[in-house]
Amino acid sequence: MNKGLFITFEGADGCGKTTQIRMLKDYLENAGYEVVLTREPGAKGLGEKVREILLNYDGIVSDRCESFLFLADRAQNIDTIVVPAIKEGKIVLCDRHIDSTVAYQGYGRGLDLERINMLNRLATDGKMPDLTLVFDIDVETSMQRVGKNKDRMESAGIEFHNKVRNGYLEIAKLNPERVKVINGSESIEKVFENVKNLINKTLHI
Amino acid sequence: MNKGLFITFEGADGCGKTTQIRMLKDYLENAGYEVVLTREPGAKGLGEKVREILLNYDGIVSDRCESFLFLADRAQNIDTIVVPAIKEGKIVLCDRHIDSTVAYQGYGRGLDLERINMLNRLATDGKMPDLTLVFDIDVETSMQRVGKNKDRMESAGIEFHNKVRNGYLEIAKLNPERVKVINGSESIEKVFENVKNLINKTLHI
Repeated sequence: MNKGLFITFEGADGCGKTTQIRMLKDYLENAGYEVVLTREPGAKGLGEKVREILLNYDGIVSDRCESFLFLADRAQNIDTIVVPAIKEGKIVLCDRHIDSTVAYQGYGRGLDLERINMLNRLATDGKMPDLTLVFDIDVETSMQRVGKNKDRMESAGIEFHNKVRNGYLEIAKLNPERVKVINGSESIEKVFENVKNLINKTLHI
Repeated sequence: MNKGLFITFEGADGCGKTTQIRMLKDYLENAGYEVVLTREPGAKGLGEKVREILLNYDGIVSDRCESFLFLADRAQNIDTIVVPAIKEGKIVLCDRHIDSTVAYQGYGRGLDLERINMLNRLATDGKMPDLTLVFDIDVETSMQRVGKNKDRMESAGIEFHNKVRNGYLEIAKLNPERVKVINGSESIEKVFENVKNLINKTLHI
């Protein structure tokens, strides 16, 4: 049986990670691996219900409530999807995970990083990704690509998105073994070449 | 304007707290106070949606996910119901709150008390009840009163419920100013006399 693997994908909206995840899934399955896709927030099952609350609740959701809902979704994703799949020797590709919270809430909004890391550890039970790919693009490219959701991004402010981007780069610097930065502004094919190279190194193929 | 007040009600299922809360609401309203009823889990609004997930989700909910959902509900209750009502000078009566987590998860299930207290502080933003009434009854009385839900209680085990009961008594010992124990096995009227006495002391009436 293959050794299971937990790979997370991070970066700004429009960075191309969802496209790359789909391409990588096909590539790995063609190479004979079993692949499980998941995401945060909104892993299959209960996570979808939590995501529905987060996105569609028609009232005020307090900041602290929102944080705990994200953590609930994360704990459920780890316990019922990620860890069981890895135990079965599968490769788990997860669209956003712990580093999104660090980049957006920590570096972006300025919340206490130590507290975020502590809560992440509680939510993941200490299970860390084997590899994290950060797709780095500048804020203008991100806004152009996101298109119709541009207003929401602009309303958060260019400064905020720059902080998030720099946060991701800082995370990569602090975790050089686990976190690799890929230039997301290149063509889909060129980006995928870089993804494959990093994955193959991790898989030793 | 009256000074707002935050009163929580704790104890085993069947201890009579829900009945006492209703009686106290009428009593306080007749005395001219504005009263807000709330509960955990399942405060009005988003809390009800979280409670629905907790009670009705048709699949596995991991323990850590469940804990974070309870905390999300608690944070939302504090931020959108309790604190705003207190600021308006109202009296908030809350059916179960932080001490339920300490008694059931901490003393009952044996989870780390320090971690529970830390998470409670995060969920409440440090806002503590002005008064907590614990309705103490023995496990047999609790089971008799709960009736049709007896099986669920029995399945958790007499030993577990004894630990919860002792946990509540320990919480009262550790917080003598805030937490008062009322003998819940007496008649509804006698219990309510004791409730009124404690409330009147707190309100200085």
